[in-house]
Formats: sequence, C-alpha cells, structure tokens
Amino acid sequence: MEIKIERAKTLKQKPDQNNLGFGKYFTDHMFMIDWDQDQGWHDARIVPYGPIPMDPATMVLHYAQETFEGLKAYRNPNGDILLFRPEMNARRMINSNKRICMAELPEEMFVEAVEAIVKYEQDWIPTAPNTSLYIRPVTFATEAGVGVHPAKSYKFVIILSPVGNYYPEGVNPVKIWVEDEFVRAVKGGTGFTKCGGNYAASIAAQVKAEQNGYTQVLWLDGVHRKYVEEVGTMNVMFLINDTVVTAALEGSVLPGVTRDSIIHILKDWGYKVEERDLSIDELMEAGRTGALKEAWGTGTAAVISPIGELCYKGEKVTINGFETGELTQKLYDTLTGIQWGRLEDKYHWTKLVK
Amino acid sequence: MEIKIERAKTLKQKPDQNNLGFGKYFTDHMFMIDWDQDQGWHDARIVPYGPIPMDPATMVLHYAQETFEGLKAYRNPNGDILLFRPEMNARRMINSNKRICMAELPEEMFVEAVEAIVKYEQDWIPTAPNTSLYIRPVTFATEAGVGVHPAKSYKFVIILSPVGNYYPEGVNPVKIWVEDEFVRAVKGGTGFTKCGGNYAASIAAQVKAEQNGYTQVLWLDGVHRKYVEEVGTMNVMFLINDTVVTAALEGSVLPGVTRDSIIHILKDWGYKVEERDLSIDELMEAGRTGALKEAWGTGTAAVISPIGELCYKGEKVTINGFETGELTQKLYDTLTGIQWGRLEDKYHWTKLVK
Ligand SMILES: Cc1ncc(COP(=O)(O)O)c(C=O)c1O
Ligand SMILES: Cc1ncc(COP(=O)(O)O)c(C=O)c1O
Repeated sequence: MEIKIERAKTLKQKPDQNNLGFGKYFTDHMFMIDWDQDQGWHDARIVPYGPIPMDPATMVLHYAQETFEGLKAYRNPNGDILLFRPEMNARRMINSNKRICMAELPEEMFVEAVEAIVKYEQDWIPTAPNTSLYIRPVTFATEAGVGVHPAKSYKFVIILSPVGNYYPEGVNPVKIWVEDEFVRAVKGGTGFTKCGGNYAASIAAQVKAEQNGYTQVLWLDGVHRKYVEEVGTMNVMFLINDTVVTAALEGSVLPGVTRDSIIHILKDWGYKVEERDLSIDELMEAGRTGALKEAWGTGTAAVISPIGELCYKGEKVTINGFETGELTQKLYDTLTGIQWGRLEDKYHWTKLVK
Repeated sequence: MEIKIERAKTLKQKPDQNNLGFGKYFTDHMFMIDWDQDQGWHDARIVPYGPIPMDPATMVLHYAQETFEGLKAYRNPNGDILLFRPEMNARRMINSNKRICMAELPEEMFVEAVEAIVKYEQDWIPTAPNTSLYIRPVTFATEAGVGVHPAKSYKFVIILSPVGNYYPEGVNPVKIWVEDEFVRAVKGGTGFTKCGGNYAASIAAQVKAEQNGYTQVLWLDGVHRKYVEEVGTMNVMFLINDTVVTAALEGSVLPGVTRDSIIHILKDWGYKVEERDLSIDELMEAGRTGALKEAWGTGTAAVISPIGELCYKGEKVTINGFETGELTQKLYDTLTGIQWGRLEDKYHWTKLVK
C-alpha cells in the first residue's frame, strides 16, 4: 500500500507521562484511507491530526454505520516497538463491518496501516511503567443522504493516544454492578461487534452503576436476563473452586483479544477453563459459599482488572476479601510481561514494528 | 429563543418536483444549536447548509451517541404551511436522548426551531401531489475523547429535504420479508428510541430482504423470536377478521406518530383495535385461512403502506389478492387529507406555521 505523507507544520507538546489518564491526548498525525464503490480502498495517507468536514446528512450521524477497534503499541526494554496480536483486531473489525454492512479493510492493509502510523508517531509512545500508545482505528459511513441502506462511501481512520491506567484505581479491585434492567445485546443483534450503537446503548447502565458507587456494569443476557455476559469494556472470568468460567462466544459477547490470550495461558498452565452459560444465581451462590475465589475483567485498555465486589439486586458479595487474587495477579504479570516485552513471548503474539 | 441568521451567498436550483425521490436533495440552510455543561443550549442559528468540521475523536463517530427524528411540512390548498403533531416528535426525541444519556432539547425549543427553519426555507416546500418537505432533526455528541461516558457537549441540527414517495412502488402493496435470524431490538434495549444504533443494526436484514426481492423487513421480538414487532421504518397493523391488531409499546417498538394517529382514527370510526402480542404463527395462519383481510405499515415517510405479501421461512401468504385494501385506502386518504389540509382536522393535529 502506498501511503502519502503530509507532515504537521507544528508539533504538539507531549503530555506528562505520569499523568496520562486514558484517551485524553492525541498525537500529531492520523492515518486515513477512503472507500467508494468505484475505487474500493484508495488514497491511503498520514496527515496532521485535525477536524474532518462532514455534511450534516452524513449517514454515520443518523444511522450509526460505524465500528471501531482498540489495541496498543508498547516499548520493550530495548526501546523496540511492539504490537500485540494486531491481526486479531483486523479480523474482528472485518466481522464488525460485515454485520453492519460496511466496507471491510483487508487484514494486511489494517496491520500495515497500524504499523505505519505507529512508526511515524513513535516519539509519542510513552516509556513510564504501565503506559502505552493506544491505537484507535475507526470505520464510518461518509455518504450524505437520509435513506436507511448500506452507504456508498466510507472512511477508515486511525488516531493514537498515549495512555496510562484505564481505571483511576490502577490494578486494584473494582466494584461491579450487575445490571438487571438495561440490556446490552441479544443473539441476532450486534453484541459480537464493536459497533458504536452497542456503546451508546450501554451508557445509561454505566451512569447508573457510577451513581451507586460502582466502576462498571456486569451485563446479563437479553433473553433470560440470567446469564453473565461481559463487563462494560471487558470480558469477565470467574475462578470458581479450581475452574475458570467465562461466557461462551455465541453472538452477544465481544470476542476479546485479551480473553482469547488469557484462555490460552490458563490452559497452558493446566487450568480447567469452561466457556459456558453461568447464571447470576450460580455466581452469587458461589460468592456466598466462598466457592468464588477470584474474578477479573480482561480487556486491552485495563489488561486484567481484579473484581472485588459484585452487587446484584441489592445483595453484595465480596470476592477474595477485596484483594487482588493470586491467579489474577499472575495473569496480569504474565500478560503485561509479554506485551511490554519483559517476558519471553512463547506464544508468538507480539509483532515488532520495524 | 433568539435565532441568529446567516444567509447563504448563493442559493441552489430547486429540483424537479415530480422526481424528488426521498432524501436526495437538501435545502440551502440548516438550523443548529449547541449544548455544553456550562451554557446549556445556546447559540441557536440558521446558517448555510454545509459541512460541520469534526475532530476524529468526536464521540458520535465511536460510540454512536446520536438520535434523530423525522416529520414533514405540507402546503395546504391555500398555500399555508402545516406541520403534523410536531410536539410528538419533540417528546420522542426527549425520550430517545434520555435513554442514550444525551442532553434533551425542551419541547417548545424543538417545535420553535422546526417552525423557524421551515418558514425560512418555505420556498423549498414542494406543491406537486404527495410531495412535502421532510424535516430531519438530529442530536449528536460533539465531545472529542475515547472514554465511554455521556459526552460533555452536543449539537442539535435540523436539515430539510423536499420529498416525494418513500417507496418507488408509491401507494401500492409492498412485499415484506419476515426476519428470523437478525434481531432489531429487545426489551431493556433501545428499540423505543430513534437512536442511530438501531438503524445500523437493521441494515443487514434489509439487504437480505432486498436480495430476496422484498421491500422491507418485518421484525420479530428478540426474546421469543415469535411476536411481530414492526417493519423497517414503519409500525405495522393487521386487519384480522374485523379487528385491527398491532404490537403494544413495551420498549422494543418505536412509538410512531402515524401509529398513534391511525389508532385514534380507527377507534373514532368504531373499529376494535388490539395492541397486543401477535405471534407470527397466528399471523401466518390468519393469512392461510383468509382471516387476515388487510395489512399496512404506518410511518411519516411512507404514511400508510399497504402490505401485499408476507414471506416467513419460505412460506408466502398473499394479502387481499395483492391489492390495496378498502380500509387501508380509507386510512391513507383520511390521514393524508388531514396532513395536506384537504380534510377537516377534527383532531387538532396540524399546526399552522405563521
Ligand atoms: C464490550 C467489550 N467487551 C470486551 C472487550 C475486551 O476486548 P479486548 O480484549 O479485545 O480489548 C472490549 C474492549 O475492547 C469491549 O468493548
Ligand atoms: C423503526 C421505526 N418504526 C416506526 C416508524 C414510524 O414512526 P412515525 O410514524 O413517527 O414516523 C419509524 C419512522 O420514524 C421507524 O424508524
């Protein structure tokens, strides 16, 4: 792919690496490529980060034909740049775009685009502990018109943001609200995609959880309002006795890259992992009896996030005395060790950006 | 509300009134107002129709915090401008925005904004039979950032499009595909709102229907995959023997303004109207036995759209010999008569724009 480059006239000052927060700063440049029916994907370019002019009838503003991805670039101890399984994000975006009937950027072009913009903006990759460069690819419909149909033109854009911890709590246990009123996704819907609509629909429950003093929402399935699905922007796993249980991928849960990686590691370590329906009643009962030893969320942003408390219909269960569990910590150390290149990458997950 | 006006330097040529299609042309100006936490709604203005610059991190492009409305302005035989129940659209947008955690434009401001822009652009209201000026208000998040939370700033915009018939078929029966794979909405979700995500999620089924030679999709409920909900961009009603049956409003169906108006008219005429669960099996059986006398969709865009055929899992039933039914036609004539000011408005639904 030929990528044209237009350099920004002035560069921004880089933010304090110890105070990055999440998604507050964006780098100097962005990657862009357009699609239309005649030319397919064309005009790949790196241009100064800045506003995109949009006709007020642009379909993305009315019918939310939009999908996104999230991955990170890391500096290893040698100063090399690493990506973590970027092809997984490429493939997931293809699946998202298929469901929303949008043009799909081929896997190789996706990965090439990510590598190109990360390399171009490499001075922005922070080096302080636990920091990284968050990579946000997004595809959206650019056709102007008010009929509901697949748009005739799309834009794929990558923006970059140097980030620290996702939760202000850092790697400390979070309190999770089990939502029994709002529903995020249902089989036959779009739950397995990273389409914008899923997130718009999720905000009300997130606000409710925060108002009650909780960090994120644990979603139950939309049909029975009973089976545990995922947490806000993470998949979720429970160590019940000596078995790790997580929701199966059956259309309503996002197939997380972190989820997949952790399942691999756990199996490699000899753990029994069950991908199955886990009812909230079974989970709360395991919490009451103490069979629920540990619980954690998995996601690119927070990596592994220990769960210290669940609240369902007013009942609270504390997990592992609101301390980060041993397995949770070991998974966090292992995965972040691989991602930041401190540990051997025996699964061949990291990709060196040259 | 004080509305500043900036006039376009050059005006567009108006399109041929007999060939408008739907949503293909936009007028010379648009209405805009901004919201932020400090100032609330502010800076109401009518400006030339044109692109809005958007930061690539703008939340609407990632998390689809966006809702829209659709209503029409009509010319009556005296040349006056009429709106149809605009306060219903204002209230529905408030409900949509509440669900998606967006700032809500108060009802009076919504209606005032619609009146102001329609009056300003009144030369664009077409006068050929069955034509009108389609009014498209939209609210979207304008904050730039990649955290999932309610945005701190929004824009409310109204654009206008002179339109003819929504379906190329005109007021002739359409063929409807009963969808049994994809799901549009589920209780606890966003089905009762006009948020963008609902429409993105619906496109795949619409494409499938068209590929099979059908005009629109009839959605079944997401829990049982059994009860009839609505059709693409219309609510749907069935005359079974002498009773009109339509889905109740229980969270997954859009509360259509046309639906509400038609139910009023039917009851006024002495018809029995049942808002209830109607299973697809009951419906198909009524189709087979001939108990299903007529069927039609109701919506602002198409007004009343007769349904001539249903196809469910390969089985087809033809309704009323694929002819527009007597009641369907009478409803169409009555409602369009009121909307275009040709009939007495005994329900006080139309609003004169002065
Ligand atoms: C809804 C949802 N579930 C799960 C995840 C975790 O996926 P991943 O591990 O690929 O970041 C994310 C974040 O991407 C998400 O948004
Ligand atoms: C999903 C859906 N259902 C029903 C309707 C009909 O609603 P109304 O009669 O208010 O136009 C519409 C159109 O607005 C719609 O988009």
